[in-house]
Amino acid sequence: MKKIIPLVFIATFGFPIAASAEAAVTPESVLESVDMAWVMIAAFLVFFMHAGFAMVESGFTRSKNALNILMKNFLTLSIASVLYFIVGYGFMFGTSGGGIIGTDAFLLNGQEDQIGFFVFQAVFAATCATIISGAVAERMKLGSYLLLTVVMTGLIYPVVGHWVWGGGWLSELGFVDFAGSTVVHLTGALGAVVTVMLLGPRIGKYSGKTVNVIQGHNIPIGALGVFILWFGWFGFNGGSTLAADPELVPSVIATTLLSASAGVVGTALYSYLKYQRIDASLTLNGALAGLVGITAGTANVSLIGAIIIGLIAGVILVEAVQFFDRVVRIDDPVGAITVHGICGIWGTLAVGLFSVDGGLFYGGGIQLLGIQAVGILAVIAWTMITSGIVVFALKSTVGIRVSREEEIAGLDFAEHGSTAYESTKSIFNENYDPSSRDFGVGLLHRLDSLDNPETQKKKGHRTAQ
Amino acid sequence: MKKIIPLVFIATFGFPIAASAEAAVTPESVLESVDMAWVMIAAFLVFFMHAGFAMVESGFTRSKNALNILMKNFLTLSIASVLYFIVGYGFMFGTSGGGIIGTDAFLLNGQEDQIGFFVFQAVFAATCATIISGAVAERMKLGSYLLLTVVMTGLIYPVVGHWVWGGGWLSELGFVDFAGSTVVHLTGALGAVVTVMLLGPRIGKYSGKTVNVIQGHNIPIGALGVFILWFGWFGFNGGSTLAADPELVPSVIATTLLSASAGVVGTALYSYLKYQRIDASLTLNGALAGLVGITAGTANVSLIGAIIIGLIAGVILVEAVQFFDRVVRIDDPVGAITVHGICGIWGTLAVGLFSVDGGLFYGGGIQLLGIQAVGILAVIAWTMITSGIVVFALKSTVGIRVSREEEIAGLDFAEHGSTAYESTKSIFNENYDPSSRDFGVGLLHRLDSLDNPETQKKKGHRTAQ
Amino acid sequence: MKKIIPLVFIATFGFPIAASAEAAVTPESVLESVDMAWVMIAAFLVFFMHAGFAMVESGFTRSKNALNILMKNFLTLSIASVLYFIVGYGFMFGTSGGGIIGTDAFLLNGQEDQIGFFVFQAVFAATCATIISGAVAERMKLGSYLLLTVVMTGLIYPVVGHWVWGGGWLSELGFVDFAGSTVVHLTGALGAVVTVMLLGPRIGKYSGKTVNVIQGHNIPIGALGVFILWFGWFGFNGGSTLAADPELVPSVIATTLLSASAGVVGTALYSYLKYQRIDASLTLNGALAGLVGITAGTANVSLIGAIIIGLIAGVILVEAVQFFDRVVRIDDPVGAITVHGICGIWGTLAVGLFSVDGGLFYGGGIQLLGIQAVGILAVIAWTMITSGIVVFALKSTVGIRVSREEEIAGLDFAEHGSTAYESTKSIFNENYDPSSRDFGVGLLHRLDSLDNPETQKKKGHRTAQ
Repeated sequence: MKKIIPLVFIATFGFPIAASAEAAVTPESVLESVDMAWVMIAAFLVFFMHAGFAMVESGFTRSKNALNILMKNFLTLSIASVLYFIVGYGFMFGTSGGGIIGTDAFLLNGQEDQIGFFVFQAVFAATCATIISGAVAERMKLGSYLLLTVVMTGLIYPVVGHWVWGGGWLSELGFVDFAGSTVVHLTGALGAVVTVMLLGPRIGKYSGKTVNVIQGHNIPIGALGVFILWFGWFGFNGGSTLAADPELVPSVIATTLLSASAGVVGTALYSYLKYQRIDASLTLNGALAGLVGITAGTANVSLIGAIIIGLIAGVILVEAVQFFDRVVRIDDPVGAITVHGICGIWGTLAVGLFSVDGGLFYGGGIQLLGIQAVGILAVIAWTMITSGIVVFALKSTVGIRVSREEEIAGLDFAEHGSTAYESTKSIFNENYDPSSRDFGVGLLHRLDSLDNPETQKKKGHRTAQ
Repeated sequence: MKKIIPLVFIATFGFPIAASAEAAVTPESVLESVDMAWVMIAAFLVFFMHAGFAMVESGFTRSKNALNILMKNFLTLSIASVLYFIVGYGFMFGTSGGGIIGTDAFLLNGQEDQIGFFVFQAVFAATCATIISGAVAERMKLGSYLLLTVVMTGLIYPVVGHWVWGGGWLSELGFVDFAGSTVVHLTGALGAVVTVMLLGPRIGKYSGKTVNVIQGHNIPIGALGVFILWFGWFGFNGGSTLAADPELVPSVIATTLLSASAGVVGTALYSYLKYQRIDASLTLNGALAGLVGITAGTANVSLIGAIIIGLIAGVILVEAVQFFDRVVRIDDPVGAITVHGICGIWGTLAVGLFSVDGGLFYGGGIQLLGIQAVGILAVIAWTMITSGIVVFALKSTVGIRVSREEEIAGLDFAEHGSTAYESTKSIFNENYDPSSRDFGVGLLHRLDSLDNPETQKKKGHRTAQ
Repeated sequence: MKKIIPLVFIATFGFPIAASAEAAVTPESVLESVDMAWVMIAAFLVFFMHAGFAMVESGFTRSKNALNILMKNFLTLSIASVLYFIVGYGFMFGTSGGGIIGTDAFLLNGQEDQIGFFVFQAVFAATCATIISGAVAERMKLGSYLLLTVVMTGLIYPVVGHWVWGGGWLSELGFVDFAGSTVVHLTGALGAVVTVMLLGPRIGKYSGKTVNVIQGHNIPIGALGVFILWFGWFGFNGGSTLAADPELVPSVIATTLLSASAGVVGTALYSYLKYQRIDASLTLNGALAGLVGITAGTANVSLIGAIIIGLIAGVILVEAVQFFDRVVRIDDPVGAITVHGICGIWGTLAVGLFSVDGGLFYGGGIQLLGIQAVGILAVIAWTMITSGIVVFALKSTVGIRVSREEEIAGLDFAEHGSTAYESTKSIFNENYDPSSRDFGVGLLHRLDSLDNPETQKKKGHRTAQ
């Protein structure tokens, strides 16, 4: 169809007539086109997941920190893509050094014909890093966060990836993680938990025995973010087949859809039983729990297995969020540690239980389950130690947390000198300039008074969002 | 796959050596990959339409009900996917029982090789059910709504689908509904109209002779929702070809694009002539009118035919919305009954007029038009009776409408104990807890006073959204 | 297809038995399916870019003009699609009249087999026109804007397209613009700069020597818009290959990803060096700068070349935005002229520098660079003269700018009689009717007082957004 276009056009639009004229069209060559197109489209969807992360994280936090969250997501994606090209891909898919780390293919040297595969892997790497941004939201310094991102995408994640997907020791051992419950999600969540422990909770989160709920400022865009993440996940799991295999792909997509749906149902039912109401934020996260849960086994479990995995992930979510928030008192504004970490572990172990090819419930004994556990422990050790060193070093030098004043004023003003939404001033007055110091100081005082409980008791403020 | 060392990828852009080693690569096998990939990608797009519905419905209603609408959309998608796997698919595509209903293939038994087709059909089923959520917005009980969803996706829709797409009596008769103007959209709209009639209008919508406009709270996200729906519709219509047919698909996509565009132009021009201004909400809905209108005939009409169908749909929209809102006084917050129902009927009849293969205007006589009318009447009878029974039963037992207090307070607080946006309290005070009863009662009182016209006359409230 | 009974699907995943029975399945026929699917999916992504434009433009402007911006984007897409079908495609891809303009193929006559190609080109045409809407935001009459859109998509853009992609004189000359840095982006930006010069700045933008910053009202949806644009750009550049070429496509996608990422990094670093902080709005635009910059050379430059092009585009962005805003004093609310115009020129010249096939830095001498410069100058001359004539004619007749009162009240009320967000009135009072004159006048007065600096000094207004 495309080739019956005007001849002049063919000659000039950069239509690859030359290329297709050179090589004869064979079933193999066409299959190569199909697989390439499939992986590229999957990469687009994984890329789009970053819009989902950005909307979820800004929607579930306060308006005064919305710009800062968006910048963290946006810069993570951009830095990770470039850095993964320079060193990350090589550490992950270069010639294996003792099954531990890749040793060549930096700048894709020697793998120039793997550009498509690189693109798909690059957006994966960015996903792992951006998971941290949600957990450290509303209080971490942008600069320190970005330095951590550099190490996560340049070294920590690629090493884990090499172990499992790059021909490293875990893949030799028979560890199964098809699309990354452990490689991507658990790794990101571990970086998050280490950072949050060294960072501490947001001001006002824990006052004495009281655990306060700090409500998100825009749940509708948060919900849109969840829809976008689910949408992108079809590429995340579906593209991990690396080929448009007519047998494998539909099964992967169906388990992804059903596990996510079951996660939503599980969370909704469980939160209804527990709180006599369907909690909106939890239910939205239920989809992500089901998605992270199925990611490792998506190619190895049955449709019914996928539903069970999702249902359990949905229940785990509710309990784990409570546990971290109330018992361990780890302040994770968007629940990233539970969704990506706990559900990532569950999903990885679930392979050992539900895999139709060696799972415990399918007569495979406990061997696979044991291997999955070994993999999880190894990734926990590597990631917590390395990210711990990095974050500790940052804390001891440049610092990782903004000042109390900046946190109260909001990171949008403190780090970017602006606000995410039209301020009262801008509605009232055409002539204000957010970049002027005056405005800044003014805003600092205004927000300080607004955010300071003591001040509030005295005044009867009203404000526009 | 990812465990294969890079050298293997280098050979073949990482397409599955193992798999392809088993079976020889033939043109037929590659075509199977292409068609599978096309249908899967189309399914992703249809899935994403649910994000569109969620944004449209929350944006075009009030902020106090935004969470509840989002939950209705989100849970509909999740419940429908699981339920369609368990029973819906079987009723729709199982072995036909007298052309009326499918009788096997529950849990895909015996159709294990139809997993990809199941995924595409599952997201369709969810679409039909979610249409109702917009029409019943801001006043229907979440629980009753979900029970209705269960019957819609588990039985009512699958039966209609069986008649037309599952080899049932309407397909035998020659009824043409390529992608579902009737099967999906009219069926959903009929469930909506029955429910709304038994549910009644929102408080404040009709006071005596006055018909009040209840403005949506966030048109920009509503507009984004319309863009997402249009985007997803390319998969809705394009994927219904079930194959990447180089002749058929481009024509389907072009008619979809042109009819939607013409719908926008038609609504804009007509609303300008009628109201001396281009109404934003109507014009956004104009695209949906054109899309629903072309869905039945997308594979059978010419490009010019598509433009005419869209233009007429755009005009019908303006009149029908007025008719339901002012004359029949059916309170449909987002215009779902007009967009999906009236335009669904128009689109189905339009096939009888514009089909290049048997349409009246193409010398085909009135036979096809008659068959289309029969199909519409049959679907109206079946859906209104069955959904009527269900909704009436719900109304007589658990009830379908929230209390006056809950409706005034907003369903977000009443059903979920929270709000969609950062409340004044949360901006002012780090320590407030939306889950505490105090907050609840406080909010109930605050909103009650805000929403009660009488109270307003006395007080001079101001509030932050 | 869906009318085929399930047994048929069971046999073959529902690929069209009927169709494929007619013609034999050959590698060539399957390749046609693959290429068609690739171009269609790319067209969907380019279509979705319009949602991105709509979110960016409404988010980066004030809430009182949000509806109007959305309508401008939405109507541009719709009018352009229909008009491009009627005349635009013919002028662009019809039989060349002296290399200047196409002379047939109106309504696709004689090119009925180019429907898929038409769809892809139609959404491109709409992209060019919608670029203008951002630059003229918050003050241009909707009607005049739409008349300009008609000429842009019906004549001005198609002629440029014919020169470069339709076999016209620039393609004969060897001008290289693979996906449209000049054809689409520069052309749109030139229409924008001409219109803005004749339109003048927004009230309050320039007071004496002071240059005021008029802050956008919703940066999160603006950021979402940027993510959507980037996502869509993979289709914009990737689809311009017109085939799923396994060699070319991955390279195009990788250069697109890396240049955009480098644009973000470049802008962030440069704005940090210049302002001691990472400016959120600029950094978001940095991605667009990198994307526009790589569009012309995406198929001809190396991955490292793409990173350099993006980095430079990111730096150019910061300086050019300042230059237009402070020095030339052209009021471009969203920076469209810089992003699409200046970076479009940069991207087109960059081909002459970085093309591995004739670029200056690759030993190709300055010939290609010269040809690129000639193309740019020719497009500048043609577009500025023709759009200048159109806009001048509109200004001298119907007028292009809303009245001062309307601009202060906001175009949402003035042109659409409504608001984009839930107003205080709607929260307070179920019974208000935004379409009533009373409400209108009321709103006009309210907004007038709110927006008038003088009034502000006297009153101590507070309002809800």
